[in-house]
Amino acid sequence: MKVVVDAFGGDNAPLEIVEGALLALKKHKGLELILCGKEDKIKEILKGRTERVEIVNADDVITNEDVPTEAIRHKPNSSLVVAYDILKTRDDVIGLVSAGSTGAVLAGAIMKIGRIKGISRPALAPILPTKKGSDVIIIDSGANIDCKPVNLLHFALMGSAYYSIIYNVKEPRVALLNNGVEEEKGNELAKETYPLLKNAPINFIGNKEGGDFMSGDVDVMVTDGFAGNALLKGTEGAVGAVISILKQSIKSHFLSKIGYLFMKQTFKDIKNRVDILSKHGGSPLLGCKKLVVKNHGSCKRNNILSSIEQTIVLHENHLNQKIEEAIDKLNTQVD
Amino acid sequence: MKVVVDAFGGDNAPLEIVEGALLALKKHKGLELILCGKEDKIKEILKGRTERVEIVNADDVITNEDVPTEAIRHKPNSSLVVAYDILKTRDDVIGLVSAGSTGAVLAGAIMKIGRIKGISRPALAPILPTKKGSDVIIIDSGANIDCKPVNLLHFALMGSAYYSIIYNVKEPRVALLNNGVEEEKGNELAKETYPLLKNAPINFIGNKEGGDFMSGDVDVMVTDGFAGNALLKGTEGAVGAVISILKQSIKSHFLSKIGYLFMKQTFKDIKNRVDILSKHGGSPLLGCKKLVVKNHGSCKRNNILSSIEQTIVLHENHLNQKIEEAIDKLNTQVD
Repeated sequence: MKVVVDAFGGDNAPLEIVEGALLALKKHKGLELILCGKEDKIKEILKGRTERVEIVNADDVITNEDVPTEAIRHKPNSSLVVAYDILKTRDDVIGLVSAGSTGAVLAGAIMKIGRIKGISRPALAPILPTKKGSDVIIIDSGANIDCKPVNLLHFALMGSAYYSIIYNVKEPRVALLNNGVEEEKGNELAKETYPLLKNAPINFIGNKEGGDFMSGDVDVMVTDGFAGNALLKGTEGAVGAVISILKQSIKSHFLSKIGYLFMKQTFKDIKNRVDILSKHGGSPLLGCKKLVVKNHGSCKRNNILSSIEQTIVLHENHLNQKIEEAIDKLNTQVD
Repeated sequence: MKVVVDAFGGDNAPLEIVEGALLALKKHKGLELILCGKEDKIKEILKGRTERVEIVNADDVITNEDVPTEAIRHKPNSSLVVAYDILKTRDDVIGLVSAGSTGAVLAGAIMKIGRIKGISRPALAPILPTKKGSDVIIIDSGANIDCKPVNLLHFALMGSAYYSIIYNVKEPRVALLNNGVEEEKGNELAKETYPLLKNAPINFIGNKEGGDFMSGDVDVMVTDGFAGNALLKGTEGAVGAVISILKQSIKSHFLSKIGYLFMKQTFKDIKNRVDILSKHGGSPLLGCKKLVVKNHGSCKRNNILSSIEQTIVLHENHLNQKIEEAIDKLNTQVD
């Protein structure tokens, strides 16, 4: 099984990316990796470890300052474009992992790989923890800023297929993000989307509010990329703010400081639970003909390991085939 | 100074509402209150305390099940409509406080009181704490679900005027909620709103993301009611989830339990800081000809006290006059 890795995407590239790749190779004996980027730099980090690693040289790098579509067109020797070309042309390569510019990863996926037939827009679906111990995904979280109801319908189908694979849940609970739970609630987009989700081949549990996001009562929260981004980033910000307030407070009370010593394990637990971005190694871009997993720019080696593992899991469990089946089922219903 | 109180709005009405009114009367010697609702029930709670209290009987109650506009039209004897009629017709009454159905409070404000000249839509602006110790408001948080750029412009003007009064800050930092900080980011609404805010007579600091909401770098976060509701509720939910995870974790470690005993003050501090809804006694409905403060349905006596006090502060500091001045200034600029 081969995965191509953009070794020069992300703030900590190439070191953390290549080290992450090595971790994955060590853990998965059937895995082969292709690393794209400056060959000499990659070799330096590999230190002679060449088993199951192929390096494809790419001298250029796409940065966050580049305009995504232009970068994909005019930087053919960038590590990301070279990686996409490999993903596109080589049948033995099952997926791509990158921690580069989100816009460029999206643009590359659409321009180089293309959408699954019937899917109007690929979408990002990151994972967050809930207070009941389960996890929740939000789709879309920022890839599609202005959306139509049919886009949200496809997000729901893809999100449901994705969640059912990664958590081995037969019928994930899919909700529509709204400003109230009643059927008639919502902005125009939500109101028009509701009946589509109600009739879709998913376990649609109706409207849910932002406050339900981390409640554990929802598995797949469906929304447009603008509101999704606000909810995702707001949630992450709030978690960070509470922890920050906690720390400030601890510092200001002598007895709390003593207590803190006893509570280290608790804080460690929380850090693990809320260490959201690291948790599953980024988010797959659902809806492309081949698997693409986007990691966040600041990711470390363990995140890259997770992303590669996620690519393997999604491939072995036929994510794209399941999305195609859901689209077929939908179309059959409509006919 | 007279304030009219909807004594039968909210889950804990009339007991908590009337008790809250009594707290306000005790604290503010120049204050007079008019309580609307079932006279006998109110009298029961007042237990003979009649100084500076007027009761206006209203036998009916508007519930969350009522369609707001219909309820305002067809329930003239409800405590809320009676209160609105008093606010409308009596010049000595400076504002109204209600913990009833948000939709009905909004509908009543527009149908009975009307908008300040030049303001396209009244909006709700609740307050949240930030990790730097300052507070942040979000406008609109759910009163206006589908918005146009001009609505957001007015939200920004009103939010800025409101924040400057309650925190005595001359030029609050006003940001536009967006999915990135760059000027060209956003959905159609955000993109069209940006230049309006840039040229408005406010301290516009540009686009901010959901993650900046509780950062302390923003005072007034401007957005439509759909995204605003997602961000507000998501933030509240995340704060609750973290505290819940914290408690679960404490229970599962013996040493944490010991630590907890030492950390009680810290937890108390956090509870106070994140006790968002209670903090400022609900949210004013900005942009109406007279002051209307909406409290949440589950509010208690202290929240009602805060709402009444907020009404006084906003009146004494001429909120509506300041909003009118901002609109005038905007129109002068345009000319």
